[in-house]
Amino acid sequence: MISSSRLIKALKRQPVDRSPLWIMRQAGRYLPEYRAIRESTGGSFLKMCKNPEIACEVTLQPLKRFDLDAAIIFSDILTIPDAMGLGLHFIAEGGPQFEFPVRDIKAIEQLPTLDPNTDLQYVMQAIALVKQSSLQVPLIGFCGSPWTVATYMVEGKSSRTFSTIKSMLYQDPQSLLALLSKLTRASCDYLHAQILAGVDVCMIFDTWGGVLSGAAYRQFSLHFMQEIVSYLKSHALTKHIPIILFTKQGGQWLEDIAETGCDAIGIDWTQDLHHARSRVGEKVALQGNLDPTILYASNERIGQEVKSLLAAYGTGSGHIVNLGHGIYPDISPEKVQVMIEAVHQYSPAYHP
Amino acid sequence: MISSSRLIKALKRQPVDRSPLWIMRQAGRYLPEYRAIRESTGGSFLKMCKNPEIACEVTLQPLKRFDLDAAIIFSDILTIPDAMGLGLHFIAEGGPQFEFPVRDIKAIEQLPTLDPNTDLQYVMQAIALVKQSSLQVPLIGFCGSPWTVATYMVEGKSSRTFSTIKSMLYQDPQSLLALLSKLTRASCDYLHAQILAGVDVCMIFDTWGGVLSGAAYRQFSLHFMQEIVSYLKSHALTKHIPIILFTKQGGQWLEDIAETGCDAIGIDWTQDLHHARSRVGEKVALQGNLDPTILYASNERIGQEVKSLLAAYGTGSGHIVNLGHGIYPDISPEKVQVMIEAVHQYSPAYHP
Repeated sequence: MISSSRLIKALKRQPVDRSPLWIMRQAGRYLPEYRAIRESTGGSFLKMCKNPEIACEVTLQPLKRFDLDAAIIFSDILTIPDAMGLGLHFIAEGGPQFEFPVRDIKAIEQLPTLDPNTDLQYVMQAIALVKQSSLQVPLIGFCGSPWTVATYMVEGKSSRTFSTIKSMLYQDPQSLLALLSKLTRASCDYLHAQILAGVDVCMIFDTWGGVLSGAAYRQFSLHFMQEIVSYLKSHALTKHIPIILFTKQGGQWLEDIAETGCDAIGIDWTQDLHHARSRVGEKVALQGNLDPTILYASNERIGQEVKSLLAAYGTGSGHIVNLGHGIYPDISPEKVQVMIEAVHQYSPAYHP
Repeated sequence: MISSSRLIKALKRQPVDRSPLWIMRQAGRYLPEYRAIRESTGGSFLKMCKNPEIACEVTLQPLKRFDLDAAIIFSDILTIPDAMGLGLHFIAEGGPQFEFPVRDIKAIEQLPTLDPNTDLQYVMQAIALVKQSSLQVPLIGFCGSPWTVATYMVEGKSSRTFSTIKSMLYQDPQSLLALLSKLTRASCDYLHAQILAGVDVCMIFDTWGGVLSGAAYRQFSLHFMQEIVSYLKSHALTKHIPIILFTKQGGQWLEDIAETGCDAIGIDWTQDLHHARSRVGEKVALQGNLDPTILYASNERIGQEVKSLLAAYGTGSGHIVNLGHGIYPDISPEKVQVMIEAVHQYSPAYHP
């Protein structure tokens, strides 16, 4: 039944009745029911991720409210370095921080090899709980790209310039490559375990690949995502699972990303979807790419933006409607409903 | 003599003996002599900008140390809103902040019309002082793009999501367009005055155009830069001055930018220079685009990156070597020297 879902069919560019739709960070702070649970756990995002019952409940919240075509497991891209013992915590305004950044080959060599079924057991338990629920749509599992996860591990926190990791990239590339290899190994095992636990689709979030030059992107980010894709596509238990790669600000490298063997590419709102399809649409599906800030607009304007998006992709399967980035915390859920209804209303015309 | 300089010739795609080179933020904190002056003025960046003698001295500092092909007047893209009375100050870690953000049509209508020769007299005085010095290379004047300046005026500070101004863009576009028109008027007058005061080249910094969708970029950022270009190119005293437009993360819109009638496009390091030249190199010169973080690398690696950059553009005039973004404060001046020497050594081969 999941295999005949709109999302899976669109990822395989098979005919669908209308364009599937889900929303990055659909389980999140813009939902009052999410904020209620978060308050009840003392406001700790990480504590929520690590409690399988809560993670399951939060994963399902948007599906109870909205007619969406996928769930995505409630988790974070930094679970791997957290499990490696780097001391992850989230500060109020500044995002994630690591107590023990990794900045030299000694620290990299000392990183432990993870067994996701024990070290990240809480994720697998949450996935299992979601799959035991009455969820009718595919469940997406995910990880961060090795490069993106490494930026946080090396910088120790969010960055604007990425000076520390890019210093390493240019001064000591071998150490950085060693770190990326370790993260790639962990990511392969992690997604493999997520698939065995029940996820139907995998997505790799490369939030910071777009801060690299083309040559550095291919060597330090895309190469390792490709290794993960190759690993999953070559193993009997995982090879049927569609994989979505998303490099924010990676629009200029779509052809290279499509070459990895992934099934779909997520694109941000700065890219023209029509142009993107003309470049890679024969090879992969495309996911995106509404500007998250259109959800501040009037209902009429939201409808117009959805129409423009659908027209930009055009007729035929292979488009998964989404925002080009995670939904912002101050968006009204009513606006999300308007967007969803517009997709339901206008997209069937593109699937004759 | 200035008209036969390497920079002006390259901007006009006329033959040169080697590729001209300057560095965004070349007058800045990475120079010990800059830090010394800054300390002597109590550490206030804005105070330095507003003191013509200091602004002149700081403008000339990098030229005394390095063999560069241009000076750029020491100033800031937020001088216009500061002169409009928005209460600009710079905080230690967080960049610029405005005491009085502009968020509704009433505030926009109340913004005063500036006379740059009085309201921004300190900029014109600094330009005049630099031109009275023994400077042998062209002096670049600049302003922020109306969109980029508006982001700070509306958000009140730096932003990651630009939620406030993008809410305005989608909810109340007429107010935003009114603000952008006012800023465009002020920018035309400002650059006109800078040219009359003596600058030889103008650059418009569109630091945040790249956070928009293509359609929004054309309507809310590029359109207004085009108006500035048209204004300067249609006035007798300014029409001979080359204009460089730089939209960070604007690589997907190069063809549109080239259509404005500008002389050159600045590109960031995420773009492939060879590809960029093939798209617009018959129409405009290109400026950039080394990753600023290569200056953390070994001397040998810096040389390799310069070689790759020159090879990417290829033979012929029309390339102004620069970083793809302002130089970072923790870069060693010795590394800048290595980069400059590499350009001097390797670029003549591309100008046979």
